[in-house]
Amino acid sequence: MRVLSSDIDQFVDQTITIQGWLHKKRLLGGITFINVRDRHGIIQIVVEDKNEIEKLRGLQIGTVLQVSGLVKKEERAPGGFELHKVEISVMVPVSDEPPIEIDKPLSHKSDNLDTLFDNRVIGLRNLAEADIFRLRSIIVTYIREFLLQQDFIEINSPKLVGGAAEGGAEVFTLDYFGKEATLAQSPQLYKQIMVGVFERVFEIGPAFRAELSATTRHVSEVTMLDVEIGFIENHNDVLKLLESMLYQVLTKLYQTSANVLKRLNVPDLVLKPDFPRFKMSEIHDMYQRATGHDVSQELDLIPDEERWVCEYAKKNLGCEAVFATDLPESKMKFYHMKGENDVARSADLLFRGVEISTVPQREHRYEELISQMKKAGIDPNSPAFAPYVSAFKYGLPPHGGFGFGIDRLTQKVIGLSNVKEAILFPRDINRLNP
Amino acid sequence: MRVLSSDIDQFVDQTITIQGWLHKKRLLGGITFINVRDRHGIIQIVVEDKNEIEKLRGLQIGTVLQVSGLVKKEERAPGGFELHKVEISVMVPVSDEPPIEIDKPLSHKSDNLDTLFDNRVIGLRNLAEADIFRLRSIIVTYIREFLLQQDFIEINSPKLVGGAAEGGAEVFTLDYFGKEATLAQSPQLYKQIMVGVFERVFEIGPAFRAELSATTRHVSEVTMLDVEIGFIENHNDVLKLLESMLYQVLTKLYQTSANVLKRLNVPDLVLKPDFPRFKMSEIHDMYQRATGHDVSQELDLIPDEERWVCEYAKKNLGCEAVFATDLPESKMKFYHMKGENDVARSADLLFRGVEISTVPQREHRYEELISQMKKAGIDPNSPAFAPYVSAFKYGLPPHGGFGFGIDRLTQKVIGLSNVKEAILFPRDINRLNP
Repeated sequence: MRVLSSDIDQFVDQTITIQGWLHKKRLLGGITFINVRDRHGIIQIVVEDKNEIEKLRGLQIGTVLQVSGLVKKEERAPGGFELHKVEISVMVPVSDEPPIEIDKPLSHKSDNLDTLFDNRVIGLRNLAEADIFRLRSIIVTYIREFLLQQDFIEINSPKLVGGAAEGGAEVFTLDYFGKEATLAQSPQLYKQIMVGVFERVFEIGPAFRAELSATTRHVSEVTMLDVEIGFIENHNDVLKLLESMLYQVLTKLYQTSANVLKRLNVPDLVLKPDFPRFKMSEIHDMYQRATGHDVSQELDLIPDEERWVCEYAKKNLGCEAVFATDLPESKMKFYHMKGENDVARSADLLFRGVEISTVPQREHRYEELISQMKKAGIDPNSPAFAPYVSAFKYGLPPHGGFGFGIDRLTQKVIGLSNVKEAILFPRDINRLNP
Repeated sequence: MRVLSSDIDQFVDQTITIQGWLHKKRLLGGITFINVRDRHGIIQIVVEDKNEIEKLRGLQIGTVLQVSGLVKKEERAPGGFELHKVEISVMVPVSDEPPIEIDKPLSHKSDNLDTLFDNRVIGLRNLAEADIFRLRSIIVTYIREFLLQQDFIEINSPKLVGGAAEGGAEVFTLDYFGKEATLAQSPQLYKQIMVGVFERVFEIGPAFRAELSATTRHVSEVTMLDVEIGFIENHNDVLKLLESMLYQVLTKLYQTSANVLKRLNVPDLVLKPDFPRFKMSEIHDMYQRATGHDVSQELDLIPDEERWVCEYAKKNLGCEAVFATDLPESKMKFYHMKGENDVARSADLLFRGVEISTVPQREHRYEELISQMKKAGIDPNSPAFAPYVSAFKYGLPPHGGFGFGIDRLTQKVIGLSNVKEAILFPRDINRLNP
């Protein structure tokens, strides 16, 4: 029976059989040391017998092996154990050298990204690269766990849609049996419709944007979390939902995955259950006092302000997540509820220096929504919008929600310089493969 | 504080406040009875006070209400309780009658499907319709729970791809910044690539097929579960994985959701941990003996045979899921492993009369794969396939997997006549909205 690298410590002085990929091979004074990788990590193996060494001749990294041997404690080995007196059998031979080095820590250098993604299929076998997607899977699992605990229902809304939910030019279009279809930029309209059925819904799925810019930040396909909640009192309820979710997900991640986070040199988490809240104008003032940079005329926070306020809150308030409240109405979309005095019923969540999500209350009143749609140049009677507005015509309660990229959150949690590093096979203007 | 319909039994003879949608209204001897729907069900409310009755005048189904009142036991009321001495406040008035009746059981009649989907946004507020998607969310949750327990990692593969994974004409294409992209028909290539990283991966996400047929079965967007597992001994390991998964998911669903299943008149589950296995030729023989219908020349099971063998196994072996093994090689795709004597290393899973999934071992040997690709007319060096074959060139262990539609499984579990009834907003050749 196969033993995994993580269980080897239970078999000291016993003979076991492992299976995995040849991950590293070196010769040291007539003895061959190999590392074999399985889904939980690395096992060091000492090959002294000439016949066994011979079996490895000409075989390259990636060769799939089965190895039987005696488990010995060895402090210098990865994991603290190694196999001795081994018998090797080659399951799948590999005779070519891999196109990319897979036994190095993460480089995090943006200028290497093209090489990284050109060789992504093999590069992901790097333990550090794989760790990124292990953490991503755990983050997604904890998000679902929280939302299901809070009585949310998971939905799947269509990605082939008749019209662009938020308008704009950055939409992929395709021929749909002679009609024009677009790829969904977000489940916005569908999650609001579903509040009328389940009150609380979420979806984790792909969203598409035809981003013409080739900057590091722009990708044409992302994995979005979308959440919507009905019967709220005001938009503060939505902020509270998001902060409890992030607090539970991240503190649990740091508790359960400490070893993986350490391997990736992820900084400590500095978080409180209640995130500090500042009005946008307060942040402008604080930033200006601290840096001398006049931002009072800015309609939004400038990127350096976002970094600054997260650092400020981390140092002085023990929390590296911040809500920027009292945003100007001009930022709002047609489905957002207007506030008073040109201040929107909305806030931005900032985490580790960047905006993660906008967290607004929606306009749930039919007449007001129709009027805001018309102002935004959208025809409420068009086939793409008529079903949406019918949800309001036949009764939707006060509601709000938020959405953010799973890629983006994973990037910021791990501290990757580029969001694409948190996507298995990223897509941008220049990249459609692998 | 708001009390939900499911918690009302804890407040007998107390005054509580509920919120929800007006779901039904009737007059009986000067008294108005209304049902209010919230996310957990229905609360019956007795309105006797003339002022309160007046507040409801002209208001239609869907009106969002807040109602305070005294909880009384009443066996004839849905849930066994009702509210008396109520004070109503209208949160969101609705003045138009809904376009579709939402207080009826499921009709299950295919000729009503167009009406159903034309009015889907409001029709989903029918308790029975909503129950379908409540069960679907639970099924997905239990599938994930099983796979995570079995050490699988959840991935998100791209839906915008450079070439069609399985060839064929039923592919949506679109302009991708001047190049041609296709919408992924399945994560097949990506999940195999990821076996080289994590050994065990799964994905739940959309898959797209440009189905030109307008039959009841054809939809152009489905939600697929895809599973792939490495280091198997043979394809039997994949069959065992699928049967343990289905057994755990379905038995748990029947245990935890008995009330919802009963509301939908879902038949009892007849399942054993080990599904009966029959060779395809055995099924042909058994079917011929039972029905007199000669199917010995059929390359595949005919639909009536699939129904018959599931019924047969249910009655005689206590299991309504069956594996049809020893399929002919002619059914196999280029990435499947060939067997011996023209028999594929694969099986079909049949459940409640239909094929749910094909469960093969993959060809993991580089040279054999290249040769099978060429035979299938696929260029292994093309940009869409070169990264895929590199995963094999640099070592993939024996592996296998399966995929099936979450929609299809939900349909068969509940006993819906059409797969579209298990999709929130179905897409077919005639339908791109809502």
